[in-house]
Amino acid sequence: MTRLKLGMVGGGQGAFIGGVHRIAARLDGKWDLVAGALSSDPDRAAASAVELGIAPERSYALYEEMAQAEAARPDGIDAVAIVTPNHVHAGPAVAFLNAGINVICDKPLAATAEQAAAIRAAAEASKARFFLTHNYTGYPLMRQARAMIARGALGRLRVIQAEYAQDWLAEETSNKQADWRTDPAQSGAGAIGDIGTHAFNLLSFVSGLEAEALMAELHSFVDGRRVDDNAHIMLRMAGGARGMLWASQVAVGNENALRLRIFGDKGGIEWAQENPNVMTVTRFGEPKQIITRGGAGLGEGAADGTRIPPGHPEGYLEGFANLYSDAADVIAGGSDGAYLPGLREGLDGMWFIAACQQSSAQGGVWVAR
Amino acid sequence: MTRLKLGMVGGGQGAFIGGVHRIAARLDGKWDLVAGALSSDPDRAAASAVELGIAPERSYALYEEMAQAEAARPDGIDAVAIVTPNHVHAGPAVAFLNAGINVICDKPLAATAEQAAAIRAAAEASKARFFLTHNYTGYPLMRQARAMIARGALGRLRVIQAEYAQDWLAEETSNKQADWRTDPAQSGAGAIGDIGTHAFNLLSFVSGLEAEALMAELHSFVDGRRVDDNAHIMLRMAGGARGMLWASQVAVGNENALRLRIFGDKGGIEWAQENPNVMTVTRFGEPKQIITRGGAGLGEGAADGTRIPPGHPEGYLEGFANLYSDAADVIAGGSDGAYLPGLREGLDGMWFIAACQQSSAQGGVWVAR
Amino acid sequence: MTRLKLGMVGGGQGAFIGGVHRIAARLDGKWDLVAGALSSDPDRAAASAVELGIAPERSYALYEEMAQAEAARPDGIDAVAIVTPNHVHAGPAVAFLNAGINVICDKPLAATAEQAAAIRAAAEASKARFFLTHNYTGYPLMRQARAMIARGALGRLRVIQAEYAQDWLAEETSNKQADWRTDPAQSGAGAIGDIGTHAFNLLSFVSGLEAEALMAELHSFVDGRRVDDNAHIMLRMAGGARGMLWASQVAVGNENALRLRIFGDKGGIEWAQENPNVMTVTRFGEPKQIITRGGAGLGEGAADGTRIPPGHPEGYLEGFANLYSDAADVIAGGSDGAYLPGLREGLDGMWFIAACQQSSAQGGVWVAR
Amino acid sequence: MTRLKLGMVGGGQGAFIGGVHRIAARLDGKWDLVAGALSSDPDRAAASAVELGIAPERSYALYEEMAQAEAARPDGIDAVAIVTPNHVHAGPAVAFLNAGINVICDKPLAATAEQAAAIRAAAEASKARFFLTHNYTGYPLMRQARAMIARGALGRLRVIQAEYAQDWLAEETSNKQADWRTDPAQSGAGAIGDIGTHAFNLLSFVSGLEAEALMAELHSFVDGRRVDDNAHIMLRMAGGARGMLWASQVAVGNENALRLRIFGDKGGIEWAQENPNVMTVTRFGEPKQIITRGGAGLGEGAADGTRIPPGHPEGYLEGFANLYSDAADVIAGGSDGAYLPGLREGLDGMWFIAACQQSSAQGGVWVAR
Repeated sequence: MTRLKLGMVGGGQGAFIGGVHRIAARLDGKWDLVAGALSSDPDRAAASAVELGIAPERSYALYEEMAQAEAARPDGIDAVAIVTPNHVHAGPAVAFLNAGINVICDKPLAATAEQAAAIRAAAEASKARFFLTHNYTGYPLMRQARAMIARGALGRLRVIQAEYAQDWLAEETSNKQADWRTDPAQSGAGAIGDIGTHAFNLLSFVSGLEAEALMAELHSFVDGRRVDDNAHIMLRMAGGARGMLWASQVAVGNENALRLRIFGDKGGIEWAQENPNVMTVTRFGEPKQIITRGGAGLGEGAADGTRIPPGHPEGYLEGFANLYSDAADVIAGGSDGAYLPGLREGLDGMWFIAACQQSSAQGGVWVAR
Repeated sequence: MTRLKLGMVGGGQGAFIGGVHRIAARLDGKWDLVAGALSSDPDRAAASAVELGIAPERSYALYEEMAQAEAARPDGIDAVAIVTPNHVHAGPAVAFLNAGINVICDKPLAATAEQAAAIRAAAEASKARFFLTHNYTGYPLMRQARAMIARGALGRLRVIQAEYAQDWLAEETSNKQADWRTDPAQSGAGAIGDIGTHAFNLLSFVSGLEAEALMAELHSFVDGRRVDDNAHIMLRMAGGARGMLWASQVAVGNENALRLRIFGDKGGIEWAQENPNVMTVTRFGEPKQIITRGGAGLGEGAADGTRIPPGHPEGYLEGFANLYSDAADVIAGGSDGAYLPGLREGLDGMWFIAACQQSSAQGGVWVAR
Repeated sequence: MTRLKLGMVGGGQGAFIGGVHRIAARLDGKWDLVAGALSSDPDRAAASAVELGIAPERSYALYEEMAQAEAARPDGIDAVAIVTPNHVHAGPAVAFLNAGINVICDKPLAATAEQAAAIRAAAEASKARFFLTHNYTGYPLMRQARAMIARGALGRLRVIQAEYAQDWLAEETSNKQADWRTDPAQSGAGAIGDIGTHAFNLLSFVSGLEAEALMAELHSFVDGRRVDDNAHIMLRMAGGARGMLWASQVAVGNENALRLRIFGDKGGIEWAQENPNVMTVTRFGEPKQIITRGGAGLGEGAADGTRIPPGHPEGYLEGFANLYSDAADVIAGGSDGAYLPGLREGLDGMWFIAACQQSSAQGGVWVAR
Repeated sequence: MTRLKLGMVGGGQGAFIGGVHRIAARLDGKWDLVAGALSSDPDRAAASAVELGIAPERSYALYEEMAQAEAARPDGIDAVAIVTPNHVHAGPAVAFLNAGINVICDKPLAATAEQAAAIRAAAEASKARFFLTHNYTGYPLMRQARAMIARGALGRLRVIQAEYAQDWLAEETSNKQADWRTDPAQSGAGAIGDIGTHAFNLLSFVSGLEAEALMAELHSFVDGRRVDDNAHIMLRMAGGARGMLWASQVAVGNENALRLRIFGDKGGIEWAQENPNVMTVTRFGEPKQIITRGGAGLGEGAADGTRIPPGHPEGYLEGFANLYSDAADVIAGGSDGAYLPGLREGLDGMWFIAACQQSSAQGGVWVAR
């Protein structure tokens, strides 16, 4: 297939997630990065473009300019990756959607409900597609789990236990990554936005169930912190299942411990992101099985997005790359992108954040959707 | 040391926990079982006594009779183990306490608040001691964890994640063990009483913190079940720590998965009962350490109650036996039994059960102590 | 059943394995310790007897005297446990076998071939039974594995990987346990005798195959050590399977890491002693299964010798106790003791030690049985 | 940096390792694939080139032609990747080396000693570099382990336990991957060449020690198989350390289980490829530590070649990509490629294969280097 052309907003020198998006785009050879508005600082934007091999005339100072210029070029970009802090998602997303250019946006959708609404309006009015990189859905075993549950392998779902624990904000920290995440104006939320939305998205994706109500206790354990760094959340899911979600950035000893367990009346599964190539599956009354990415016992779902044989571990970047690969297939016309998160998932995440904040502010009450 | 003499109420043929108590009492050679009212069925009581080598004249049909007769004998029992269903704890406990005989009672304390109050009154009026077998506190690494936290190794505690998951009640089940546990009149509660109290006790024991309030969602997922089989609970602990507790008997793929994680501002620990000889400990900014029972890095707490070198696993029975061993030392006069759960822990558990039931019945509200 | 009466030779104050034997004998309530020649030091023997509740008239200074006196008593012991250093196995074993008293002897059989031959002659001439405590065969999952292999669950066996790694002798060490083990006159061998024989016995027990030849490299890595502290061994098994065995007491980071893996043309198993309640089983082309002691998927073998439900871990002492329990059943007449190691296994171990020493001394050559 | 230009020999449709090399080359954005002789079948070669976006004029039918043409172009390739079966390494390697073009060759070096000698001669005569993709050395934690050992963190090395177990050849299998590997004319060897050389290379790389002698037992367990599918090997290392190496492709239940354990007089390490982001490290007398890729406790070595934060797993492709990234740095002039395997490692591997075959053919004797 012909490679698609990618642009990027944000992701200049010193950024983290921009580099991840670039590797993810590159990994399967379906995208070439050809344009960018890589930084709000013009010098950094230009220097970053040189480093990345972007031609000077396609390195833009402003994303608005980039959207218009690229839309006008015959060889304009097929999609733009938006990898800015949360409060700078809506501006470029609207600009590119309005210009008819597909958007691949980092999560969460936005820092405020107003920004989210603007994206929604633009997405609904545009012929272009809007993708949201809830990358953990790109792990083959999570797609396998979703498919297994959809065909009833676990029976009727009863209990969902999701958690996402880190410790890198256990103390007061100042660096480029920490600073915007702990500034409510830029992030809109703390742990619930940065990682809680991932866990919430993943449990929804895998279970196929929507949350009907939640109750949350948010805390800021580090003195002076202005956003939550620990969240305890209970969930009432459609169909009667009940869930717990724990998101923490102060859980000492956890690096990036996203874990999902789902139990139905016939079976249960367990998976942990830090060793993502294995998942345990138990059918009631039978021994627990270890399902591996690419190994025996796999069915629908997991074959997609696996590149190498079992026992050759794939990781975070490969999972992320599956979103870029799938998005390329959608844009090129060969796929409906059934697994790809988009606007709906982004709005779900915004509801999740707002409901958590409302519940906690009111002392821990249930908030319905 | 001279062996102490043990009596038992309950634990006849077909029972489960009675056999565990007997092994636990026997393991360290500090107790001889010499008397019993082993069953409310006189024939089964007598047959059980023969099997256990109890002399016929010390096999009693009624526990009241046993309490009086043993108290009157010059070689009467030093303690009685009460291993009956929850609603038959209070009767024998009061009888033996009134007779001045030490009581080792299975948990939870009782099936109702009235029964608990009766035990409390008797215990406070008696010179005899009252022990409650929250046996998971007997694991050496849990004692080590408690000691570490007490001396500040984790810093100020922030987050507690406790869970106790089983699956043996995932379907409608009928046998001696299941029947009384799922009859509210006999058990007083379902998963929260049977296993939730263990998790609650263990987190209190290790953290050294008291719960100030809780919020609970109790469910009965199996059709027709009259007690809870899944409980999602949030905890507000003294000093500002926050916790989650999940107790389930319908989590397919879990056998007896009691797990405890505690995080402070300086460190975190993780432990799982099914492989109880290891605990991971992380100090913030340092690599995670694997502490083993008996291995390098142990300090106060864990040396107590370990019999064999590291790498030679001790298990559930050894942890349970530590309670019997410690109780013998207290009764024989050589120890203050600092680690041993008793009346206070039993009343804590009754509060836990009642608060969970009240919170859930009112739709998931916070209930303060 | 009536309790049997046990005597003990060795195991006085300061000993290790004697205490393990006593707990193992006590755990299931089938034995009472009533006699002993607990130490070659008369004062220590007497003091140890008092501690253990042995009547003074049955605390003997000499094991020869004990054998004769106990044989003459109407209430004499049913069996004697021999828990002395290796070079003091043969003396008491012969004395008690000659006196018609059953023997439960710690492993390995002896320190020299001559001693082993003497035990063999006495055992073959006596009506009494001779048991050898290769205790790792007492783990329920090892019995399950043996039964699975015997009925062909793994197909024709191809490869056996056994290892037993410790690190407590990684440096020069002096204490009661280390001293006799590192004195060739008392032990007869180092790591190969102390732990290698366990691994060799276990792989033979589980596979059901006899070793036909071996090749060994023995080393003494610690300066001045007079026995081997690391052994690399290759095995040619009957029927064409091939094996490796590694025994080390200098493998830093290993506490008591006995591991066994066996592969046939239809399946494979893996088990590690430090978490003995789980075993993984794979049938070729199917997902790996986790089999638990007492859990789903168990068949013949494992039900024997399990006391408590799955998820309630049993450990080293319970496995050891299974040998005492089974021996009691054999002596009491209700069992043929099919799982119990005895003279044949002891002689196998002596061949193993001698062949390793011969192979290594000759520069690493193959030694046939 | 400017991207380098890569050519490829082999790796057309249906191949496995060629695709891995392409992803590895692409991942860090340092290489563009611009030329190829992708298959010995001209139609497949051309079709594969189209798929991969190689211009028709740079898709060659013969590698000899490609070497000359690319050497003559002003924009000729900077390096060629050779990803053919083992017996087709030497031909293209010599051709490109003679043409002055850098070579990145898959392992093992060759199928025969003669082929290896030809490569050696060409490499020694050429100004171009020769790299061999022993990709497991690309894992950051293996580089960390090498650096730790080099600075003495484990003390003097004593014992090395290496193993590489798979099960995909447990039965008779026919497909493109299996066929050439099990044909001695194409592969030169079975498990010892395909995976044994990886394990041997990795233990040499990490320990920094050369093997002085080995003893091997090779087997072909599957009926009719003409190469070894299981190898048991003992190693005598320079400096007195002793090792075991097990390579198997019939070990049911193992996918790609490369594991390395190294023990010295001060410490020990353990690592397993299937979860490559963790390594345990024990200093004698201290608790075991879990070192993670990117996490606390890392020092020299591991920082190289890690792209994302700890807890975000990197895998096989990332490790492989480190070799391509490093090779680019060497060719571009910014690095000495200290970690990169090349001719010497290739010749080591050829010695390993030949010595294993000789030892086994002679009944299991020691073969010195």
